[in-house]
Amino acid sequence: MEPVTLVLFGATGDLAKRKIYPALYNLYLDHKLPRTFSLVGLGRREWSDVKFRQQVEQSLREFSRSGVKEGADLEAFLQAFRYSVLNIDRTEDYSKLLSLVEEREQVLQLPPNRLFYLSVGPEYFETIAANIHQSGLGSAKGWKRLVIEKPFGHDLLSARELNQYLSHFFKEEEIYRIDHYLGKPMVQGLEALWQANPAIQGLLKKQYISNVQITASETVGVEERAGYYDHVGALRDMVQNHMLQLLMMTATQLSGKSTPDQVSLKKKLVMEALDPLRKQDVSQQVVRGQYVAGSQQGLPVPGYKAEPGIPADSTNETFVAVRMLINDFFWRGVPFYIRTGKRMGEKATRIVIEFKEPLAQPAGEQNDKAKPNLLIIELGPKERITLQLNMMDLAHKGELKPVEVELLAGQTGLPEAYENLIHDALNGDSTYFAHWDEVELSWKWVQPILEAFEENLIPLHEYPAGSSGPRQAHELLAQDGNHWWLDVEEPERSEEKPVQIREYAQSVNQ
Amino acid sequence: MEPVTLVLFGATGDLAKRKIYPALYNLYLDHKLPRTFSLVGLGRREWSDVKFRQQVEQSLREFSRSGVKEGADLEAFLQAFRYSVLNIDRTEDYSKLLSLVEEREQVLQLPPNRLFYLSVGPEYFETIAANIHQSGLGSAKGWKRLVIEKPFGHDLLSARELNQYLSHFFKEEEIYRIDHYLGKPMVQGLEALWQANPAIQGLLKKQYISNVQITASETVGVEERAGYYDHVGALRDMVQNHMLQLLMMTATQLSGKSTPDQVSLKKKLVMEALDPLRKQDVSQQVVRGQYVAGSQQGLPVPGYKAEPGIPADSTNETFVAVRMLINDFFWRGVPFYIRTGKRMGEKATRIVIEFKEPLAQPAGEQNDKAKPNLLIIELGPKERITLQLNMMDLAHKGELKPVEVELLAGQTGLPEAYENLIHDALNGDSTYFAHWDEVELSWKWVQPILEAFEENLIPLHEYPAGSSGPRQAHELLAQDGNHWWLDVEEPERSEEKPVQIREYAQSVNQ
Repeated sequence: MEPVTLVLFGATGDLAKRKIYPALYNLYLDHKLPRTFSLVGLGRREWSDVKFRQQVEQSLREFSRSGVKEGADLEAFLQAFRYSVLNIDRTEDYSKLLSLVEEREQVLQLPPNRLFYLSVGPEYFETIAANIHQSGLGSAKGWKRLVIEKPFGHDLLSARELNQYLSHFFKEEEIYRIDHYLGKPMVQGLEALWQANPAIQGLLKKQYISNVQITASETVGVEERAGYYDHVGALRDMVQNHMLQLLMMTATQLSGKSTPDQVSLKKKLVMEALDPLRKQDVSQQVVRGQYVAGSQQGLPVPGYKAEPGIPADSTNETFVAVRMLINDFFWRGVPFYIRTGKRMGEKATRIVIEFKEPLAQPAGEQNDKAKPNLLIIELGPKERITLQLNMMDLAHKGELKPVEVELLAGQTGLPEAYENLIHDALNGDSTYFAHWDEVELSWKWVQPILEAFEENLIPLHEYPAGSSGPRQAHELLAQDGNHWWLDVEEPERSEEKPVQIREYAQSVNQ
Repeated sequence: MEPVTLVLFGATGDLAKRKIYPALYNLYLDHKLPRTFSLVGLGRREWSDVKFRQQVEQSLREFSRSGVKEGADLEAFLQAFRYSVLNIDRTEDYSKLLSLVEEREQVLQLPPNRLFYLSVGPEYFETIAANIHQSGLGSAKGWKRLVIEKPFGHDLLSARELNQYLSHFFKEEEIYRIDHYLGKPMVQGLEALWQANPAIQGLLKKQYISNVQITASETVGVEERAGYYDHVGALRDMVQNHMLQLLMMTATQLSGKSTPDQVSLKKKLVMEALDPLRKQDVSQQVVRGQYVAGSQQGLPVPGYKAEPGIPADSTNETFVAVRMLINDFFWRGVPFYIRTGKRMGEKATRIVIEFKEPLAQPAGEQNDKAKPNLLIIELGPKERITLQLNMMDLAHKGELKPVEVELLAGQTGLPEAYENLIHDALNGDSTYFAHWDEVELSWKWVQPILEAFEENLIPLHEYPAGSSGPRQAHELLAQDGNHWWLDVEEPERSEEKPVQIREYAQSVNQ
């Protein structure tokens, strides 16, 4: 790995404190940072280098997954850190920054490889990129890279504008758009499992797969982000980026081997093959929801409109479910279902691949308890990959029951998503990042849904906090004879429909 | 299950004591015996009913896998047992037996369903079958069944003669030939796993399978059976029956779903598709071995010829390995390797299905530790089914190592082979028995090997006690670029070849 200077905008911010410093430190402990390494932190606050290092050390003590190993090593790590005050609009601050970076490069004998990490709001991306260019920071002989965080645009138009602007200063292959869902160890584990095992490759063939379900459910509400979230909603906050990225990765990884530079192309092809939605068809494929008062773990929880900072007449969605079809050779005929929501019954991010019904079950035998085979990729909070099989109770011949077999165990000491991503960016490997074509195609695909939501063309269904989303999200799958797997048991609903949703979906499926 | 009388010849023998009574008792505890049930034990010894029940009870205390539950239940179980002295040649003893059976049927109001279990040497089969017929024991209105133990013949000719003789008195569908390897829970577990899981069906396709290996290795020598064994050898004792039956079951179970009455036909088709061996080709496909002095667990062990009761010039084989091809649509091109031996390094009966080499491993990466995927069916002494996958160490990207994933766990409380088999025979289900066509075809297939051995057309290779057999058994697979999996580490050999066999086979395979 080549020596590098990491220029961190937003060095005093929350993401840096919680994720970036602990990630860098753990990479350091695992000998996955370059041999020589310089970091310059930037912020508006008037911090000294000493103060900065104290703050970094504090963040390690609080958030490093493997704690802090005292002594010379920690000192050496922190010695790489410098701080410079920067007002984003002030050109002289960039000149000062350049001098500091160059001075450190000289002292440490670093080649001028510079990674600019923008851990700041998207409203600053353009200004910073322009100033990096104009100050000369970006015109040294080494390589330069730009790491940016979501959101990348607010809709198709704004995303295109942002990208066009950035492209004046950075080439596409120099831009690393972080989607931290792609950094999760099990996303990479799925690829490893698939590539290293012909048995798994044999298994994951289209003809055996009934459908793919991607769920990202949160138990929290809007927390302190009410103002922002009410403006954005679940579609922009989760679907356009994380959910579609997971869909692309799943579809790409399971349909064949890819070298790193093919991944971006293949993801693009998946997006291009995605059946486009016309605005008038959104109601058939998309369910929009907002939580109302309910309960979680026995405690009452207010509805979305009663959350502090949310207008009482908000029509913002806190839940989205979508039924999708990828119209390519590999996936044609296999529906993908995605859903995401806040204030759900369970915190879980998982991909479930449902296999077609047992082909060769002994006819006429009582196998009520047998379930379809499922490949379950749990991205969080559990991290593991399991295969749900039907086992015969050999002590009492004939009775089948589903059992989960762990294919990839969630080891302790797994790197966090940010470690993987920062490591890859330092290494120049963009496999697990969002590339422009994907981002653009995602916005393009999402755009009719955005408009349908804004024009209120489809209903906003209520769901009680602590549930698995609106009934209609279950009916979306029931149309195909499917239902969502692995939902936690739900509390009784006081809705118009007397049967419980899960029972309904299951009865349809039988 | 219909009420039945079990007429047990050899009731004072070792098999009855160790296996049959404990099996019946555990079936009884599991409510898997018929509601009403009568057992008449027969032997030459002058036992009373009381003495007989004492002996049965004693056998339960010693050998029942779930112990003995004291009290009324045990009493009720033993009350079903009667004893009658029987000299196999004396017709009046059969008349007395008939009276006793009929008396018990009357008392217990049993229909005259009679299962005759011949737990005696094969030299008595014909006499007993004829007497069952002539005494009228076999001509009641209910059904009759004949259960016999191996060996079924000594070669093709004697097997045919025996079968022809028995067929005068019992129809083929009334004859249950026990091969206790087929009663092992994991043989039935493999079928269950396959039938109940489309994912496993997807996996076990010919195009993914490199080869199938069936091993039955014993650590013991000839024990008290020297005279018998030296006359029989590993080929007759193990290969013609158990090994070929396991091969037939594996090939049948994995190539498609079968109803019970199709199993026999399908096994026959496998035997018919087996590439026949001509006597002059035996040396290419078969390895014959005999153990010489060696060591097991650090202790010296004598060679076969030094065992008590074995002639010093014996050319009897204690080890056989065979390479076989099944020339049918499903298995063409997938070699089957079988081997069995005494005084091996490990006691193990297992079937290993090796998958073809990883198809999509990232090129150029260091994956020295990656191994082919294996499906491992352990029949004993461990009982379980595992899948060996390559796992990536996610904490240190890139390094693969093989890990065994348990697909079917060896539960405690699994029934023993004899429980399964006696239960099936009582139920009239012959799925897991050896049928005449299979037995005949097995003898026919084995016959050229028998003759080649007798005529000394192929060498008798030595192997040290405690090893995994002769070097030539490893070379047999190395021809195809394969090697035996899961062998225990071997002690250094003092042979002509300096490299260790395992290393040799592996180097060929790489």
